[in-house]
Amino acid sequence: MAKVGIVMGSDSDLPVMNKAADMLDELGIEYEMNIISAHREPDVFFDWASSAEEKGIKVIIAGAGMAAHLPGMCAALFPMPVIGVPLYGKAFSGSDALYSILQMPPGIPVATVAIDGAKNAALLAARILSVSDSSILEKLKAYSGRMKEEVMKKNEKLKEMGRKDYA
Amino acid sequence: MAKVGIVMGSDSDLPVMNKAADMLDELGIEYEMNIISAHREPDVFFDWASSAEEKGIKVIIAGAGMAAHLPGMCAALFPMPVIGVPLYGKAFSGSDALYSILQMPPGIPVATVAIDGAKNAALLAARILSVSDSSILEKLKAYSGRMKEEVMKKNEKLKEMGRKDYA
Amino acid sequence: MAKVGIVMGSDSDLPVMNKAADMLDELGIEYEMNIISAHREPDVFFDWASSAEEKGIKVIIAGAGMAAHLPGMCAALFPMPVIGVPLYGKAFSGSDALYSILQMPPGIPVATVAIDGAKNAALLAARILSVSDSSILEKLKAYSGRMKEEVMKKNEKLKEMGRKDYA
Amino acid sequence: MAKVGIVMGSDSDLPVMNKAADMLDELGIEYEMNIISAHREPDVFFDWASSAEEKGIKVIIAGAGMAAHLPGMCAALFPMPVIGVPLYGKAFSGSDALYSILQMPPGIPVATVAIDGAKNAALLAARILSVSDSSILEKLKAYSGRMKEEVMKKNEKLKEMGRKDYA
Amino acid sequence: MAKVGIVMGSDSDLPVMNKAADMLDELGIEYEMNIISAHREPDVFFDWASSAEEKGIKVIIAGAGMAAHLPGMCAALFPMPVIGVPLYGKAFSGSDALYSILQMPPGIPVATVAIDGAKNAALLAARILSVSDSSILEKLKAYSGRMKEEVMKKNEKLKEMGRKDYA
Amino acid sequence: MAKVGIVMGSDSDLPVMNKAADMLDELGIEYEMNIISAHREPDVFFDWASSAEEKGIKVIIAGAGMAAHLPGMCAALFPMPVIGVPLYGKAFSGSDALYSILQMPPGIPVATVAIDGAKNAALLAARILSVSDSSILEKLKAYSGRMKEEVMKKNEKLKEMGRKDYA
Amino acid sequence: MAKVGIVMGSDSDLPVMNKAADMLDELGIEYEMNIISAHREPDVFFDWASSAEEKGIKVIIAGAGMAAHLPGMCAALFPMPVIGVPLYGKAFSGSDALYSILQMPPGIPVATVAIDGAKNAALLAARILSVSDSSILEKLKAYSGRMKEEVMKKNEKLKEMGRKDYA
Amino acid sequence: MAKVGIVMGSDSDLPVMNKAADMLDELGIEYEMNIISAHREPDVFFDWASSAEEKGIKVIIAGAGMAAHLPGMCAALFPMPVIGVPLYGKAFSGSDALYSILQMPPGIPVATVAIDGAKNAALLAARILSVSDSSILEKLKAYSGRMKEEVMKKNEKLKEMGRKDYA
Repeated sequence: MAKVGIVMGSDSDLPVMNKAADMLDELGIEYEMNIISAHREPDVFFDWASSAEEKGIKVIIAGAGMAAHLPGMCAALFPMPVIGVPLYGKAFSGSDALYSILQMPPGIPVATVAIDGAKNAALLAARILSVSDSSILEKLKAYSGRMKEEVMKKNEKLKEMGRKDYA
Repeated sequence: MAKVGIVMGSDSDLPVMNKAADMLDELGIEYEMNIISAHREPDVFFDWASSAEEKGIKVIIAGAGMAAHLPGMCAALFPMPVIGVPLYGKAFSGSDALYSILQMPPGIPVATVAIDGAKNAALLAARILSVSDSSILEKLKAYSGRMKEEVMKKNEKLKEMGRKDYA
Repeated sequence: MAKVGIVMGSDSDLPVMNKAADMLDELGIEYEMNIISAHREPDVFFDWASSAEEKGIKVIIAGAGMAAHLPGMCAALFPMPVIGVPLYGKAFSGSDALYSILQMPPGIPVATVAIDGAKNAALLAARILSVSDSSILEKLKAYSGRMKEEVMKKNEKLKEMGRKDYA
Repeated sequence: MAKVGIVMGSDSDLPVMNKAADMLDELGIEYEMNIISAHREPDVFFDWASSAEEKGIKVIIAGAGMAAHLPGMCAALFPMPVIGVPLYGKAFSGSDALYSILQMPPGIPVATVAIDGAKNAALLAARILSVSDSSILEKLKAYSGRMKEEVMKKNEKLKEMGRKDYA
Repeated sequence: MAKVGIVMGSDSDLPVMNKAADMLDELGIEYEMNIISAHREPDVFFDWASSAEEKGIKVIIAGAGMAAHLPGMCAALFPMPVIGVPLYGKAFSGSDALYSILQMPPGIPVATVAIDGAKNAALLAARILSVSDSSILEKLKAYSGRMKEEVMKKNEKLKEMGRKDYA
Repeated sequence: MAKVGIVMGSDSDLPVMNKAADMLDELGIEYEMNIISAHREPDVFFDWASSAEEKGIKVIIAGAGMAAHLPGMCAALFPMPVIGVPLYGKAFSGSDALYSILQMPPGIPVATVAIDGAKNAALLAARILSVSDSSILEKLKAYSGRMKEEVMKKNEKLKEMGRKDYA
Repeated sequence: MAKVGIVMGSDSDLPVMNKAADMLDELGIEYEMNIISAHREPDVFFDWASSAEEKGIKVIIAGAGMAAHLPGMCAALFPMPVIGVPLYGKAFSGSDALYSILQMPPGIPVATVAIDGAKNAALLAARILSVSDSSILEKLKAYSGRMKEEVMKKNEKLKEMGRKDYA
Repeated sequence: MAKVGIVMGSDSDLPVMNKAADMLDELGIEYEMNIISAHREPDVFFDWASSAEEKGIKVIIAGAGMAAHLPGMCAALFPMPVIGVPLYGKAFSGSDALYSILQMPPGIPVATVAIDGAKNAALLAARILSVSDSSILEKLKAYSGRMKEEVMKKNEKLKEMGRKDYA
């Protein structure tokens, strides 16, 4: 049963949001993914967000660009954690989405990650689930170990190859 | 019957939004005013915005600060013009609200006015109604005439008093 | 007879502003389109904006980049609604045009839409006309219905194809 | 036993961070609070963050201003969720802290809330704990109910008193 | 006969624009000062700006805040130099006025000075007149000499009093 | 004899600054052009700027990017008008140069034009010279007339060709 | 003999720059302090910066606001390290000074510290001198030790007093 | 023995940071270069930064993008000068890294250079070492001399070739 709900308002958001799904796949966490627009189909959205809890979803990852109301409206309707991914855009480089997601009024929190930070959104969802799921916690620690090793290998490679050849 | 619906998410927005009501009063345009939060009572908000048309409302003026989802969600549910007033805030001086209101995706327009521009929101609502109401158009022209006179009198006063005494 | 006047200061604005005209065409709303510069031919501009009302124009859509005085000067000379479209530019990504259009002083409102938001400008013009024209209101509702269907179909397609093939 | 660790780098952050503690108190969630500087006592910080898990802490709330390394360094050393609260400052109005907290590289997520958003940080921590703690979930739902009622009462009061007396 | 025309759109701009007049007084340069709004009385403005040349005005100093169309519209109607003074405002700290004045399209230049930089606007007007008026050039050089002396005296005072007493 | 001195700190600025020279050529105004760096050869710069007046230069146009000290240092050493052209750059899109040129302290004015606005810098120089040179004033008026005609022709072409073919 | 030269362009900068001097006093490092303007007395400035090396100065700390050319021009004339302190200002909150100081072109580095960061400028100067002066290095380590102790004591006090009494 | 330590958090930073190494090579200053991540391997980082002094390193150059904690954490652990190079990024054009590096709290200074300013970081390191190493000071002066000559030659070439051929 899906524990994470990934949602975005437009299929143009898919290339970035796929990174969240890839990361959840790597950690073996089940998710469902939907394209639902809070603006173009508010009733569909309302139903989906209101029923997510009873479907067993524990965390929502919502990606949105521009006015980016999707994460905040999820947080208004779903009682558990909502992670917002502000998406890069031409005119404001993603700061429009960032402000719309980040600056939620007191009472309705959204956990905001970096612009286009869908991978970290998945890792944050995993950390949230790890609070009560030690197998996910172990997987996260193993993942951190792999990240550490990678950097160490790069440094060794730099020493061996020299900085000019490496670049 | 109210033709304009003024809505805001919090009573802290009232001092600014009252300027819209004052201007509508001056032009003799009826309105209703509500404090309704899209985040804290999404179902109440949904009902209000969905039924505004049948209640005879022709234009909505929505004021909001910070993540400012109210105007955009009104425009998703109400088919006629929605005017958004971004409200000044401490951290981003109102640019957070501005981006959330302005950067609506294609398909769902919000008419955005200046930060804290509630007075102009009312004048814009009046201009919208003036398209099919010549009495409002006449009132708007009379108002413009008064504005012009005021500036001309100030310039005369400047010539008479001199710039130092005037200031 | 044209009900909407689309105006821009330079032919370099045409590719964006054509989106407004396309949308009005789709909704069956008549418009006239002009290239008129408030800076390079202030007298021509003055005459055009001052006579728009008597020519039957009900809404002006003005697109402008950089210092973007065109929408605000329209609003000073034309008594009905003026919609401003701030155009993207290299140095400030359109924020220069945005501020010039949005931050109108009390008394002379401009309805500002997103940067390069010409399509929404047309939809806003249609919403304005729909206040007194039920056929336009019906067309707008039908358009909203089509938008909703499109998103729903995309979501179905995502479920069928899977997220990787879709992207 | 404390489930939430609140940490800040300076006692000047206390007035804002106290709002997180107040909210946790209201929800009956235990926490510990520390003033620990990642810059001025990196070894003390290192020990605290590295041992938080074994002390039973499930979520860290880290508030920081200016260069704001504290939340990100917590996320590097603590495997479960870290919530970052960017604090307002004179020169950049909190955007310096925001960028330092938000823009974490792939692999080490921080859940960022609004500038000075300590109250929402606590609510987000509660939502995180609510994933596996139904009593906290109930308390959150009750809290949301109270928020809704408050807004509804304010709207009634507005209708009764009139907008001028209310303001 | 006035060689410099100082113009502003509102009497609220007078405290800043008086600094330009003070500086011109100090240099013995004649000027006229007007409050004329391009938005509220476009015809009055049009007449004033179009007739400035024949009245003998050689340089216009135009101060404006917010959307700040006044300097650019002066430059469209008056063929000699126009100096724009962007005025500080609450929401954008004067950057709205700055962009509106600075980002003029090719063909219609405005000489922009610092935000609230009315004193430098007057000095720039004097430098412009000094190109063909050696007495103004001499006064400017004398003024520069006085500025230099002042700084030198302050440095001497600092040495004598010590940094703590000086502050 | 050159009346305008065009100066830039690096030959990478030449493509933009050539537009100033092209415009001066079109207006028949003589100029000299130099690559001189205030940072890399402060003594050479000092000599050039200090001796510009006696060489007959009446206006300096200084283009600079990044920290952009060149225009301000010119204004400290040359008593007549200095026009600053802020040049576009990667990290701040030219706002670094803009602030460095615009925000001169009281006493030392620089006439700032748009980012990469070298053409307008030349037109501003021409306007400055036109204060005492009626032949330049005539050329400027003729140039304005040509600009006006061009826009009018474009509008006619739009009417003839239709908006889609034009674009 | 003074090893550090503190310089600022105006006596209004003294309250901030005194913090640099206070810190140097605390570390027992000798300095000279001057008010010298690169804009108002370029020749005096030129002489001072060019002769600083032979007077025995090893590091210059230059504070400046607005266009802030002082640190960069110091770095053009003095071959050893220059530290720039961008000073807070009304219109751009110090970002104007920051960009002018930070964005030096390749070849002429300025070590930039935080806005109004005069204390850190002094500590950076001390770190620079500590490279070849072990007594200064010891003093810096002792200072770091004191900072660490202070934070630890604050944390103890928080535990003892409780968070509400502490605040 | 290496006197300068160049460190970066990711091999994607290498192309920019190589410019620092190239400059140090040109000046004959020894350095070591490492890829070490404060976030992905905090213990490795901690060890490296804590032991840099005893390995003989006198200056650290740390390049980092996005949240950019590396330079500040180096300054917390290493007592001598740390130079931070903020690296350009997509969403904030490097301002995220800039704020994270620049806005260090009082007590722990980082010498910040321009965005992507690795070359100037190396020159700043050389200036720091030149305080006690006259051979490096001589090399720096020779380098400045070569820069000056280059600009002078470019100006001569401009005079010879003419501005159009040069560009």
